[in-house]
Amino acid sequence: MWKSRKIIYKILIENNLLLPNKQACLNQLTKLGINYIAHHHDPVPTMDDVIKIQVTNGTAYVKNLLYVDKKSNYYLILANHTTQVGKLFWKTLGLSSGNMRLSKEEQILEALKSSKGNINPFAIVNDSNNRVKNIIIDEELTKFQRVALHPIENTTTVEISLDDLQNKFLKPLNRQYTIIKLTDAEAEQQLQQLKQQSNDQQHLQTLAITVKKSDFSEWYQQVIRKAELIEYYDVSGCYILRPWGYFIWEQIQRYFDDLIRTEDVENTYFPMFISAKHLNKEKEHVEGFKAEVAWVTKYGESDLNEPLAIRPTSETIMYPAFAKWVQSHRDLPLKVNQWTNIVRWEFKFPTPFIRTREFLWQEGHTAHSTKEEAIKQVYTILDFYEQVYGELLAVPVIKGIKTESEKFAGGDFTTTVETIIPQNGRGLQGATSHHLGQNFSKMFEINFEDDKKQKAFAWQTSWGLTTRSIGAMIMFHGDDKGLVLPPRIAKYQIVIIPIIHKDLDEKQLNERCEQIKQILIKQKLRVHLDNRDNYSPGWKFNKWEQKGVPIRLEIGPGEFKNNEVRVVQRFDNKKYQIKIEEINKLNQILDNIHNAMFEKAKIELNQRIKQADNWKEFMTQLNQRNTILTKWCERQECEQQVKGKSGMESKEKDSEINGQVQLTGSAKTLCIPLKQDEIKEGEQCFHCGQQAKRYVLWGRSY
Amino acid sequence: MWKSRKIIYKILIENNLLLPNKQACLNQLTKLGINYIAHHHDPVPTMDDVIKIQVTNGTAYVKNLLYVDKKSNYYLILANHTTQVGKLFWKTLGLSSGNMRLSKEEQILEALKSSKGNINPFAIVNDSNNRVKNIIIDEELTKFQRVALHPIENTTTVEISLDDLQNKFLKPLNRQYTIIKLTDAEAEQQLQQLKQQSNDQQHLQTLAITVKKSDFSEWYQQVIRKAELIEYYDVSGCYILRPWGYFIWEQIQRYFDDLIRTEDVENTYFPMFISAKHLNKEKEHVEGFKAEVAWVTKYGESDLNEPLAIRPTSETIMYPAFAKWVQSHRDLPLKVNQWTNIVRWEFKFPTPFIRTREFLWQEGHTAHSTKEEAIKQVYTILDFYEQVYGELLAVPVIKGIKTESEKFAGGDFTTTVETIIPQNGRGLQGATSHHLGQNFSKMFEINFEDDKKQKAFAWQTSWGLTTRSIGAMIMFHGDDKGLVLPPRIAKYQIVIIPIIHKDLDEKQLNERCEQIKQILIKQKLRVHLDNRDNYSPGWKFNKWEQKGVPIRLEIGPGEFKNNEVRVVQRFDNKKYQIKIEEINKLNQILDNIHNAMFEKAKIELNQRIKQADNWKEFMTQLNQRNTILTKWCERQECEQQVKGKSGMESKEKDSEINGQVQLTGSAKTLCIPLKQDEIKEGEQCFHCGQQAKRYVLWGRSY
Repeated sequence: MWKSRKIIYKILIENNLLLPNKQACLNQLTKLGINYIAHHHDPVPTMDDVIKIQVTNGTAYVKNLLYVDKKSNYYLILANHTTQVGKLFWKTLGLSSGNMRLSKEEQILEALKSSKGNINPFAIVNDSNNRVKNIIIDEELTKFQRVALHPIENTTTVEISLDDLQNKFLKPLNRQYTIIKLTDAEAEQQLQQLKQQSNDQQHLQTLAITVKKSDFSEWYQQVIRKAELIEYYDVSGCYILRPWGYFIWEQIQRYFDDLIRTEDVENTYFPMFISAKHLNKEKEHVEGFKAEVAWVTKYGESDLNEPLAIRPTSETIMYPAFAKWVQSHRDLPLKVNQWTNIVRWEFKFPTPFIRTREFLWQEGHTAHSTKEEAIKQVYTILDFYEQVYGELLAVPVIKGIKTESEKFAGGDFTTTVETIIPQNGRGLQGATSHHLGQNFSKMFEINFEDDKKQKAFAWQTSWGLTTRSIGAMIMFHGDDKGLVLPPRIAKYQIVIIPIIHKDLDEKQLNERCEQIKQILIKQKLRVHLDNRDNYSPGWKFNKWEQKGVPIRLEIGPGEFKNNEVRVVQRFDNKKYQIKIEEINKLNQILDNIHNAMFEKAKIELNQRIKQADNWKEFMTQLNQRNTILTKWCERQECEQQVKGKSGMESKEKDSEINGQVQLTGSAKTLCIPLKQDEIKEGEQCFHCGQQAKRYVLWGRSY
Repeated sequence: MWKSRKIIYKILIENNLLLPNKQACLNQLTKLGINYIAHHHDPVPTMDDVIKIQVTNGTAYVKNLLYVDKKSNYYLILANHTTQVGKLFWKTLGLSSGNMRLSKEEQILEALKSSKGNINPFAIVNDSNNRVKNIIIDEELTKFQRVALHPIENTTTVEISLDDLQNKFLKPLNRQYTIIKLTDAEAEQQLQQLKQQSNDQQHLQTLAITVKKSDFSEWYQQVIRKAELIEYYDVSGCYILRPWGYFIWEQIQRYFDDLIRTEDVENTYFPMFISAKHLNKEKEHVEGFKAEVAWVTKYGESDLNEPLAIRPTSETIMYPAFAKWVQSHRDLPLKVNQWTNIVRWEFKFPTPFIRTREFLWQEGHTAHSTKEEAIKQVYTILDFYEQVYGELLAVPVIKGIKTESEKFAGGDFTTTVETIIPQNGRGLQGATSHHLGQNFSKMFEINFEDDKKQKAFAWQTSWGLTTRSIGAMIMFHGDDKGLVLPPRIAKYQIVIIPIIHKDLDEKQLNERCEQIKQILIKQKLRVHLDNRDNYSPGWKFNKWEQKGVPIRLEIGPGEFKNNEVRVVQRFDNKKYQIKIEEINKLNQILDNIHNAMFEKAKIELNQRIKQADNWKEFMTQLNQRNTILTKWCERQECEQQVKGKSGMESKEKDSEINGQVQLTGSAKTLCIPLKQDEIKEGEQCFHCGQQAKRYVLWGRSY
């Protein structure tokens, strides 16, 4: 500490400042007509001390933070003590969080004539040089009747209304203040709205994507909107799936429905609401979800008798019915699936497709008479998920098992298909298939009479695939020009663009295009003819490239004359002519494109998997945006230590290396890959040195 | 009135009863250790008077009702004053509502030594003969801290806790009391749970439906469960759609998707949550829905900043996005559709498929540059709905326009396909297609630059079809044996049942069945071979008949030898043999079945439409379970009068005629049929006698 508290106080008083002490402050409050409740106590320099003061019901404890930028502009933040003060709100205020630092002791003294542990808004009076540019008030505080603040000194706490602080204290001083959301999740929403407004204004001017894929986060935000996959919405974490994006989901639905039909899984629909009683039935399960559950408590103007949860997953909705349906071993296996919306009120940063509060998914649930059959089901479904990613989305995945600490809440073990986003090396969980064992069947009494007339509990599985799969596809294949769609999920696989030319009769050209379109439709290809006359061919090229259409067919004077079309492949920009009589080749060409995209993606994925034998290698690879395959002891304690240490060491590196912003955040286990080399006696865990058991893949993740 | 209040009191006191007056009652409360707050006032004989007493916060006004059955058993009901006391709770208590009457003055005196306007639970002390069999307490009252009651006389009100009433007052008197839900909607749920429990116990014993279709309501409840379309769920008004039922919905989805694709409508998904701000934007619209809107107010343990509504329909969710997407006339028409769940917290009696709080639907929304184009869209979609009903579900509908008072909230006019359930003559709204005019586009600023560079507002439509369509199909086609499915929506169109016989090698028989199955699958028929060896052929016949499979193929020794199959048609029980080489006829036979079912349904529908020229004819037809087509003036006032009068006159008829329970309830306008005769100058409205404008169809409705 720069100077002891006593010395600071001495300076303050010697300088004869306006509010040198608490008595002066309390007198001032009275003078301004501000009602207050005062508590006198020992000094409370930290929030941990502050919250021990017994304040009145409806009063918020306030965390006071003083930030300063490189130009010595100060910003005083009043936050509710439970608010996770993020970084994004600075952007909303038009400021850069990168420039902001918490004030040091001498800076607090300079600006407010106050000290660490004594920061308070009344001290603003002491800022005679107007160093404090803004007083940023947490919107959360508006929900309370009063706020608890120190009148200059932290040996007293006063409770006053926020209204009085604003209108009777700050306004008369002509002080700027802003009420704003401080958590990142909420600030994100405000930001998006601002961004959207400005985007909307620029709609026509800036059709093209303005950044390269290397500016990954901004690129992604632009691609999803400009390719018309997503529209923003005014409820945080919820997005509109536009037809171009929803079509992809429809293809996934059809493909996956066909797969599970071979396993005799039947589609169904269960209600969205869960009574608290059922939700709470499986303890570990409810613990895993309860912080994210949205509750309906009212209808119209009335309160519900009992609040209803919106499904974060449907185990507890379905299994009471399973218990009714399953009586005998002849009722097994029972296999159902549903395609629904799901709500999880997550507080991590929302990203369209990847992490949203409402999302679409499929969830399958099965019950079996033997453990072996259930386990077989788990892996069959895992293979199906691999097929969806590979055969439809051209995205490679790694099949594996989640560690104990990462498995599904309430299940026995979780299998997963994981992928790695080449651009940043982040792991992305693609879909999971859980073996639930008999945990739920025991809680929900799903039992049956086996062939020996003995009562037995069913063995269960559940498994889900969400719209985040679309996000992975966008991230893998998109390029600087925008989206690149693998052919099997593209709403339009082929777009035909006539190139009007003075040497060519427009009507004849259009007829030719229409003919070709009809030939291709007969081959069950999805074709669009863009013969709008108010856009140039160039504009159309850009438009459909941005939207990721796999093949563009151009027909101009040369092609018309020679009975050809010009083929332009989106993913590799390859251009060539083909004869109209050979146009049935396009089906094969689309398949080739799919395969080439998939192969390229596999290479990119594999480049992001590195091995490490010790901590230094591990952190080096992590900081180079890779995932790391290591030998591991499989101990949870070791896993937690790796997570903690990698997070700490990342934070210290919160800076740019070679001009590239470093990712921060802990590395966690992504999965224990199914395909792996055997580990021999004596081979050690990369981290703790104990006997290794299996290879595990670590990485930062979405 | 039988005797004046004074005389009654005189008798009470002369008879030296335990609690002859309020002072005795208050003394008794003190003696029993019951805390009370007392208010003294003028007599308050009615609830309207009672609620003027200013009671403490958290205290419920209590409505006291004394019922009596034919055997002079009394039942005292304490209901929260806002509770709509229904009839169904009697059934939950094992009693018949038909036997219950409100006590008359002399009966109140007899049982409680009290009078009308003075009924109160303390008077139970005066029931020395134990005439009051049960004290039925509204579950609603448990939500309040205290209840307001009269201590014998209604010139005083005491507030006591319900707990004290139960434990310190009723229990020591050894009085039975039951806390129960009194509204029909909630009692329905309790009943269903009870019924389900007993059904579950009888699961194997009572496979067959135990009532005939003429006992319509009970029949319907049994069919939907025993055909495995629906499973009950523990949230009131929500039901599980089992695979047998969900398959039907999938067929409707595919069929309708194909239809709207021809209109260039694109599928999409918008979020489920609506901010209050957007919901409230169109005034008439929000008024139409707000009582039924479910609100999310919490996640985890925290409150949301702002409550979020769950979509009751998505106009206000979609149209802010429409406003962004529509800039120029070239952006029009804009046509989207989505298949989603919807929540409307209705308080009418829930019926699976027909009226549920969560349901599945499709909602389409379009925006156009001209009114004419929008209106054309409305009617094209209406035709599609007619096709879904006719071509898939074999249910005839009447296309029409809703009257002003029945149209969609916020729209310009609503078109509808209405059907009439033959069994009870109730109208059932099948699907609606709305012309929204420019009402929403003006509120949400969906405007565009037309080809003359003028700003104009878009013309809009919205239209929806729900899972209730499945309910209509069940009601139309089901029979005493259970469900009868029209072939195009049946999950299994054909079930093959081998008839094992000692003269026949079982393996050969099964091979033959499997061969036939494969032939039929190649013809794209949906076939199931039921070769389970633990069920008899008879059991299987019943099982698949109950589930409504259109065709059963039996193969026994005779069929085997002659290379035949025996065909049994579900809908008309027609049985005949066909040669295996002619088995491709089955496709045509299924089509014939569809057509025959549809024709039969049309006749049944038409039999329920009668004409009436005056009020007497109108009520006669209504009481004979018909809908009535009348000439009408189209005045809302007249419509309201008909509704009111028909409701009143129905109530008076609340009895049995010819052994059949009469339906009660108002007749409302179902629609103004599109196809109708012209009305000439001078022809009068059947009800008010003013100049008639058009024919309108009236009826009781679902």
